[in-house]
Amino acid sequence: MSEFLTIHEAAARIRAGKLRPIELFEQCWDRIDRYEAQVRAWAYLDYDGARRQAEQLTQEWQRNHYRGPLHGIPLGIKDIIDVFDMPTGCGSTLWATSFARADAECVRRLRQAGAIILGKTVTTAYASFDPPPTRNPWHLERTPGGSSSGSAAAVACGMCLGALATQTGGSITRPASFCGVVSLKPTWGRVSVTGVLPLAPRLDHVGVMASSATDCAILFDAIRTAPTAPRRIRQRLLEPNDAAAFGLLEPTMAEAFATFRTTTATRDWHWHNHTLPPSFADVRHYHYLLMAVGAAAYHGERFQRRPHDYPPSVSQLIRDGLQCSAADYERALKHHAQFQTDIDHSFPKGWDTFATPAAPGPAPSADTTGNPVFNAPWSYAGLPTLSLPIGWSREGLPLSVQLIGRRHHDEQLLQLAQRLEATCAIIRPPLPL
Amino acid sequence: MSEFLTIHEAAARIRAGKLRPIELFEQCWDRIDRYEAQVRAWAYLDYDGARRQAEQLTQEWQRNHYRGPLHGIPLGIKDIIDVFDMPTGCGSTLWATSFARADAECVRRLRQAGAIILGKTVTTAYASFDPPPTRNPWHLERTPGGSSSGSAAAVACGMCLGALATQTGGSITRPASFCGVVSLKPTWGRVSVTGVLPLAPRLDHVGVMASSATDCAILFDAIRTAPTAPRRIRQRLLEPNDAAAFGLLEPTMAEAFATFRTTTATRDWHWHNHTLPPSFADVRHYHYLLMAVGAAAYHGERFQRRPHDYPPSVSQLIRDGLQCSAADYERALKHHAQFQTDIDHSFPKGWDTFATPAAPGPAPSADTTGNPVFNAPWSYAGLPTLSLPIGWSREGLPLSVQLIGRRHHDEQLLQLAQRLEATCAIIRPPLPL
Repeated sequence: MSEFLTIHEAAARIRAGKLRPIELFEQCWDRIDRYEAQVRAWAYLDYDGARRQAEQLTQEWQRNHYRGPLHGIPLGIKDIIDVFDMPTGCGSTLWATSFARADAECVRRLRQAGAIILGKTVTTAYASFDPPPTRNPWHLERTPGGSSSGSAAAVACGMCLGALATQTGGSITRPASFCGVVSLKPTWGRVSVTGVLPLAPRLDHVGVMASSATDCAILFDAIRTAPTAPRRIRQRLLEPNDAAAFGLLEPTMAEAFATFRTTTATRDWHWHNHTLPPSFADVRHYHYLLMAVGAAAYHGERFQRRPHDYPPSVSQLIRDGLQCSAADYERALKHHAQFQTDIDHSFPKGWDTFATPAAPGPAPSADTTGNPVFNAPWSYAGLPTLSLPIGWSREGLPLSVQLIGRRHHDEQLLQLAQRLEATCAIIRPPLPL
Repeated sequence: MSEFLTIHEAAARIRAGKLRPIELFEQCWDRIDRYEAQVRAWAYLDYDGARRQAEQLTQEWQRNHYRGPLHGIPLGIKDIIDVFDMPTGCGSTLWATSFARADAECVRRLRQAGAIILGKTVTTAYASFDPPPTRNPWHLERTPGGSSSGSAAAVACGMCLGALATQTGGSITRPASFCGVVSLKPTWGRVSVTGVLPLAPRLDHVGVMASSATDCAILFDAIRTAPTAPRRIRQRLLEPNDAAAFGLLEPTMAEAFATFRTTTATRDWHWHNHTLPPSFADVRHYHYLLMAVGAAAYHGERFQRRPHDYPPSVSQLIRDGLQCSAADYERALKHHAQFQTDIDHSFPKGWDTFATPAAPGPAPSADTTGNPVFNAPWSYAGLPTLSLPIGWSREGLPLSVQLIGRRHHDEQLLQLAQRLEATCAIIRPPLPL
């Protein structure tokens, strides 16, 4: 088995001529051959098409055309995002053979940057909560998290060096933390959702997963709609006072987060406890309403006509959305707008980043996709969040911190995470498979 | 069998409460039951979904909500145009079960106007020239024309009262004339192509088919992107001098066209022979290049990977496009721009409409889709064209005239056709099936 490369490392070797895209492609495919039967991260794989891309990019390099740090990098794309001439299954039975006639905007940008699209990674049905076939590569009885289950599991196995994912509640951060990979959920609106199945458009985000914050920055640079000005990076982290508001923390995560706090503090990072705005109290309730009504608006009629194509959890979500009154929804919309203003103003001057656990604990059993309680508020806020592994549970499952940045300060958040990564790098054990 | 209604007639009855949408829907379905096994006009039919739409629109009318002349009108949609939760097969084997996740813009507008979508009408593979399974309802050994084969055949049978179609060469006008229905290919750009499979975007048009020019005006009104100012309607028709440039005319069509000329002339229509601009001579050649290169740009890579999913004619088109040099293509682009200017300036003052045969003759045998030679120049010009039945061949096949209007004068062209329709209405015999 080849060594485990980050995008940044692979790119340096490709650029220097020490690694050809076709070799890197075959290394990824070896890992797919080795792990896929147990992990089931992929809804669709395209060996021939991907190999052809790898050959073309190898030839391009030989003709002295180097596209940049994604040149020849194999990626996976969540199966609610269109890739030309691959099905966009969306976790639906009926749509499993629905081929896309065009790349989604974010995929088009990755291709232009030289990425190799290996295939489509498993999503829960319609990017909701029903458990997928995918298993956690660190423990096959555990969930990889959802809904971007396949993206997280595939990156964790090194089947691909990065992946596109999406989040409406906690669908990027949760699986990334359960699988021990780094993820960025950008500011709402920073990445085009054209060509992506909606769940609730007011909350839907396209984001990235990879093995390091540097890699996430490379991926985000390719798909973001516009760059923002550089900002000062301060080694400062805000801890929400009312962490209890998120829900109960498992002891192993409480311990890992405390260690993270101590380690960073001894390395010149400053921490500050901070109170979230009062409107935070109703976020969980209204987030669910926006998500349910969004799902009902898109799926409602089809759900009534084709109930057999909707598993239990997403069915319940749609039913809840269909039953929501317009008056309740109007209150939710008002709260949503108010909370976004409140949270933007809640950052103290000079402090740009919140830090929380990324999940209540390590990945639970595979009959659930885990609890998005730490993530959903930030999908609702629309603020950028980054998930970074900080330790391991006794069973050898990853534990991560979630960093939350100011609106449109995605680049600053990525740089801060790169610095944290350098400060407290964690040892990554070999996969137990 | 119920009587044969136009959209205009059905709308009057629905509005007056003399016909309920659900009744009209069932009448159409009776015709589908009767003719579809022989005619094969449909790639996908959705009885349950359409019935539900008909019930909703019936209830709406009962609650005194009348949407307008498409309220409760059953339509067919060519199978390269997306309809939510129906497959967009595009005449491809691999895409036959590819469900659309959203309505194309033109379909969305029809739905808002109250139309009932019965299903998807057969297209030739990728809207090119390979013969489809559909047969001409006037003679089952003959072609319905292509590529909008199913739309023309379904309207001719009264399975639906109107249909969406598309044209890149002669794919609206030709099947409309072979099947004896009225069609409008609007000015290029007047109807959105969002959600429509491209063949050659510089030449692709979305248009409509129905049983009368009035019906086409109703359909066009719903899907056009912006209305234009009313214009004076003059009973004047220009006949191109160099009709021979189009190709050989079969005697039956020559006769029908001469009769049309005589009949209209005796009823105060003025005719004038007119010479087309010199750049017309190269139109056929460059139209083919633009179409081939457009097809190659979209399908090229997929064609090389999945040759089995491309039948012979479209394969040849794509191969020709792949072999075209950039220099030849640049000449084609230059000619295309020049010809559009030339043709716009070629209308004499006070004369707004050309008239030609819609095809060299009646529908040929079903192993071809017929000759688009009279239509392709106007797809290339981007001018609006309208196809209107003017007679019958000895075998009982329809013969049509093609009217060509000034750019963006689609509404004027429709009104002129309505006046012609009133002037020389042709008797429509019962279908021989």
